[in-house]
Amino acid sequence: MHFTSEQRLDDGVLEREFTLGEIPGILWTPPSATAPAPLILIGPPPLGLRKMYPRLAGRARYYAAEYGFAAATIELPGSGDRPRWAAVEQARADLRRAMEAGEPVGDEIVDALVLPLVEKAAPEWRATLDVLLALPGLGGPVGYEGGVISIGIRLALAEPRIAAANLFAGSFVPATMFEEARRVTIPLQVLLQWDDEGNDRQAALDLFDAFGSKEKTLHANSGGHTGVPRFELDAGARFFARHLK
Amino acid sequence: MHFTSEQRLDDGVLEREFTLGEIPGILWTPPSATAPAPLILIGPPPLGLRKMYPRLAGRARYYAAEYGFAAATIELPGSGDRPRWAAVEQARADLRRAMEAGEPVGDEIVDALVLPLVEKAAPEWRATLDVLLALPGLGGPVGYEGGVISIGIRLALAEPRIAAANLFAGSFVPATMFEEARRVTIPLQVLLQWDDEGNDRQAALDLFDAFGSKEKTLHANSGGHTGVPRFELDAGARFFARHLK
Repeated sequence: MHFTSEQRLDDGVLEREFTLGEIPGILWTPPSATAPAPLILIGPPPLGLRKMYPRLAGRARYYAAEYGFAAATIELPGSGDRPRWAAVEQARADLRRAMEAGEPVGDEIVDALVLPLVEKAAPEWRATLDVLLALPGLGGPVGYEGGVISIGIRLALAEPRIAAANLFAGSFVPATMFEEARRVTIPLQVLLQWDDEGNDRQAALDLFDAFGSKEKTLHANSGGHTGVPRFELDAGARFFARHLK
Repeated sequence: MHFTSEQRLDDGVLEREFTLGEIPGILWTPPSATAPAPLILIGPPPLGLRKMYPRLAGRARYYAAEYGFAAATIELPGSGDRPRWAAVEQARADLRRAMEAGEPVGDEIVDALVLPLVEKAAPEWRATLDVLLALPGLGGPVGYEGGVISIGIRLALAEPRIAAANLFAGSFVPATMFEEARRVTIPLQVLLQWDDEGNDRQAALDLFDAFGSKEKTLHANSGGHTGVPRFELDAGARFFARHLK
């Protein structure tokens, strides 16, 4: 891991960009910490790190400044400045075409779009975790949150260091990921935008129902895809504060 | 209104029992207040004030001690120490019989059970509000929370002093109350136990969908009817704190 920039922000949070091999990422750490800080992995930005920076940094800095958590994110394979990935580009184009034509999005498009991403991204997040947890001031319990819910499901199931996950409901979840969801047992909070134009509400409710976790909470809010209420930021932080001790 | 008892509790909260005509009730006020305290109406205890006292007082004292809210509740017509009400007793018996026989609960049973209660209870709550808001230290904005969701719907729609409502999803909502729900516009939080044995999950989701409020949030938690997680108490208080300024 190489830190490529370092900046102390006006809320006291330290923001460092890094690369891990070819993967760019950002780490935010709290102004001061007496014990190892809990670490929130802020799940893959599907539109790329640069484009989603304001949203990612807004969440991360709130967690760090208000709750003393560290937070980190890395670029998805094939996104942002990382090399194009032909198979996923093709699947994205197929998805776009189907949606623009108003056709139902077939399982084969969803599988082709999501499964390779999960297979490649999940090990990258786990390797990043190895490195992050060895840094001074880190090493506390780990939470995961964010989009591309299938990657969240895989990590919640396969990465035992993740103690709790705050997932954003999304459509386009392959059937095999429903099967994995049934085997997830860590505490979950799931955020659903009730009137999300691009999201099948019933599929999201079915996925919430499928999760095997004994403690799971759904927060459904009126409004469209980008209308997540501001108060959910604090609700997410409080969820992690309960579980990352 | 006559106060029939007064007790300063160990958290500093003042608990006063009162009667308003034939209706018994309880008022909890915060240890100290500089401005008029917001008032939370803690919705009708369907099993009676005495039986549900620990749960009611637990919520009210938390609101008063932690958030500086006042809180009050009154006995439902036909419940607790109030005179029996033959029509409602009959409807309750019909409901019990249908459920024990594993039969579907018909609309006529639901209507007979709920509609007379709504018609009689809602004006009582409004009259209680008149008296409470005239007390010294009260007079702030009003929130409503609690069970018998049809009474909550009626009050959310008909009582303009109620600025926000935190409702507990329940089955047995008459079709006419769905129509009223569509006309509700105040901010809502709705609590649903995902695995509630006595509650039709789809009906609860349909009701949440029906509410006309621009700001509405559903908190669905895994677990049965009595398994509402402890953290929802604070989530309710924070909802009111956002809206009762």
